[in-house]
Amino acid sequence: MTQIYNFSAGPSTLPKSVLERAQKEFVNYKTSGVPLIEMSHRSELFEEIVERVEKKLRQLIGINDDYHILFLHGGASSQFAMVPMNLMYTHKADYIVTGHWANKANEVARSYGDVSLIWNGELDNYRRLPILDEIRFSKEADYIHFCSNNTIYGTQFNYVPSYGDRPVICDHSSDILSRPMDIEAFDLIYASSQKNIGPAGVTLVIIKKELLKQPAYDKTPEIMSYKVHAGSKKLYNTPTSYTIYIMDLVLDWLIDLGGLEEIEKINREKAKLLYDFIDQSQFYNGFADVKDRSLMNVVFTTGNAKLDLAFAREAEKDGLMALKGHKKLGMLRASIYNAMPIDGVKSLIRFMESFEKRYSD
Amino acid sequence: MTQIYNFSAGPSTLPKSVLERAQKEFVNYKTSGVPLIEMSHRSELFEEIVERVEKKLRQLIGINDDYHILFLHGGASSQFAMVPMNLMYTHKADYIVTGHWANKANEVARSYGDVSLIWNGELDNYRRLPILDEIRFSKEADYIHFCSNNTIYGTQFNYVPSYGDRPVICDHSSDILSRPMDIEAFDLIYASSQKNIGPAGVTLVIIKKELLKQPAYDKTPEIMSYKVHAGSKKLYNTPTSYTIYIMDLVLDWLIDLGGLEEIEKINREKAKLLYDFIDQSQFYNGFADVKDRSLMNVVFTTGNAKLDLAFAREAEKDGLMALKGHKKLGMLRASIYNAMPIDGVKSLIRFMESFEKRYSD
Repeated sequence: MTQIYNFSAGPSTLPKSVLERAQKEFVNYKTSGVPLIEMSHRSELFEEIVERVEKKLRQLIGINDDYHILFLHGGASSQFAMVPMNLMYTHKADYIVTGHWANKANEVARSYGDVSLIWNGELDNYRRLPILDEIRFSKEADYIHFCSNNTIYGTQFNYVPSYGDRPVICDHSSDILSRPMDIEAFDLIYASSQKNIGPAGVTLVIIKKELLKQPAYDKTPEIMSYKVHAGSKKLYNTPTSYTIYIMDLVLDWLIDLGGLEEIEKINREKAKLLYDFIDQSQFYNGFADVKDRSLMNVVFTTGNAKLDLAFAREAEKDGLMALKGHKKLGMLRASIYNAMPIDGVKSLIRFMESFEKRYSD
Repeated sequence: MTQIYNFSAGPSTLPKSVLERAQKEFVNYKTSGVPLIEMSHRSELFEEIVERVEKKLRQLIGINDDYHILFLHGGASSQFAMVPMNLMYTHKADYIVTGHWANKANEVARSYGDVSLIWNGELDNYRRLPILDEIRFSKEADYIHFCSNNTIYGTQFNYVPSYGDRPVICDHSSDILSRPMDIEAFDLIYASSQKNIGPAGVTLVIIKKELLKQPAYDKTPEIMSYKVHAGSKKLYNTPTSYTIYIMDLVLDWLIDLGGLEEIEKINREKAKLLYDFIDQSQFYNGFADVKDRSLMNVVFTTGNAKLDLAFAREAEKDGLMALKGHKKLGMLRASIYNAMPIDGVKSLIRFMESFEKRYSD
């Protein structure tokens, strides 16, 4: 059977060893006799998993007790609303818009106050990110919001945009755990689970305790209040327990591999192979500015929309799945998150070579 | 190895055949070569699953095109807020409070307008449900909210409380799909997935299209707008895809079994066995009024809190899991949802007999 590699942008590929372990204990978690997927979220065995996941996240990223770690519902889309509902105290906020999802966050926030678009990448078709000097921070704002990695356009920040002691909020969905990070540079990080953390179903929120006050808006429901979630000794309501279980296995895999320094090396190697191949080719072009290229999502094109579609279709037949770009941009996109093995990238490059031979004339 | 039965109130036991099928295809969904758990929610294979699940729900329950079926995040707790945020147009609503969760819905709704507590079961310690004549409907209200089955207290409605053409909203989390229902009696039904539908992670919403207007409150975020979700041709954002996949398998199991008429017979038989045993015993007492007893959650006690705890502990050693009652009430609780086999109930009764022999003197 053909070896299959899944380049989906999310939900996305999981480590093979994690899948095998999950399959093995699917109907009987450890020696409990009960499948984890049907276990009460208030059971001892499940509460241990939640504690372990929190501990491993603290250890891997280096998160101290100044921060809460929350396991929420609703994906990044819920956070687009929760951030302003909870934190927009003077009804002013700074948004850096570097892609479709960063813009969505900006649009949602506009229902809650005056949002300053302090960088609008749309003018460059989101091909590049600003350097710090280009960002026009407001005189007053409750926080700065940005997205660290833009999946659709394949760009990734290599610094944390900040302004004095203004709180920094980051949508880290698509590159969290992909390299070491300085948690102190952030006041709130959110990340949906379905890229580097596990399957879909959990929204991870890492929030500085200092930020926990009453929600900024009266009609913010309990379920959308950071303070309420952080104040619950246990989980506020039933989480997607199976996703948290797989997160536990993914974190084990990452720790065994050597942690964030090690995964960064591997991620850099994978991305370099692919970008180097694109750069030497006369047939393929990368989309993003070289300095802003993402290590997670490599966006490229043959320059011909029909040929791009043919590429994705033929690649699929060769076992290289989900390479079609997002409908907002078209083109091709290889998502090479933590769990994509280097052999997957090498297979993709081999296919790119053969496709080029067949179609360039 | 001891046969284990999981009486958890949610997440709760899943059909054995579903678990085995899921385990078998865990690392390779059908012939795709890709695990479903890592598959894009925009992939053809996953979109087919969502369509199938919707179709099967329509077929099983009898839901016509006057209703949308939505797959949301956040559990019933999110719906406690979404219902008033979307539907409380004149800022008045009627709430029937028959338990802890029904009361939680009532409390959350109070942030959004004048809530009339048209039945307050707390005065009877939630031991019984009202008959229709006891409910004091308001002259004016945007909707009636009730909870069809109260997991903590083990009570279940056998009719739909209604008043003229006032919209009826029902939290059906713990007894949906357990017996036939007349969908026309409801305007909106919500149900978290982790009882009769599948594992945790999805909130099923069945909403009459007529109800879809702009949300009643200005600051209702898109992610909490029924209109936005229903208006998205595809899923609005990434759902808990693995839960939807298991739902598909659970629905297959239910259809193969003969549908809702058949499962009701089985559920009645299981509940009758257990209640009959309790009623003939001098040692155990049921909690709920006989006429309001739930077919899903059987709450009982030895009359002694310490003995109840000993019961739960010893039962666990015998392979009968999660019989400890909810902390709000204490006592013992056997959740015998659709997937609990009759043999599980028989094993529980055998254990109850032996426990009684050992401890009654």
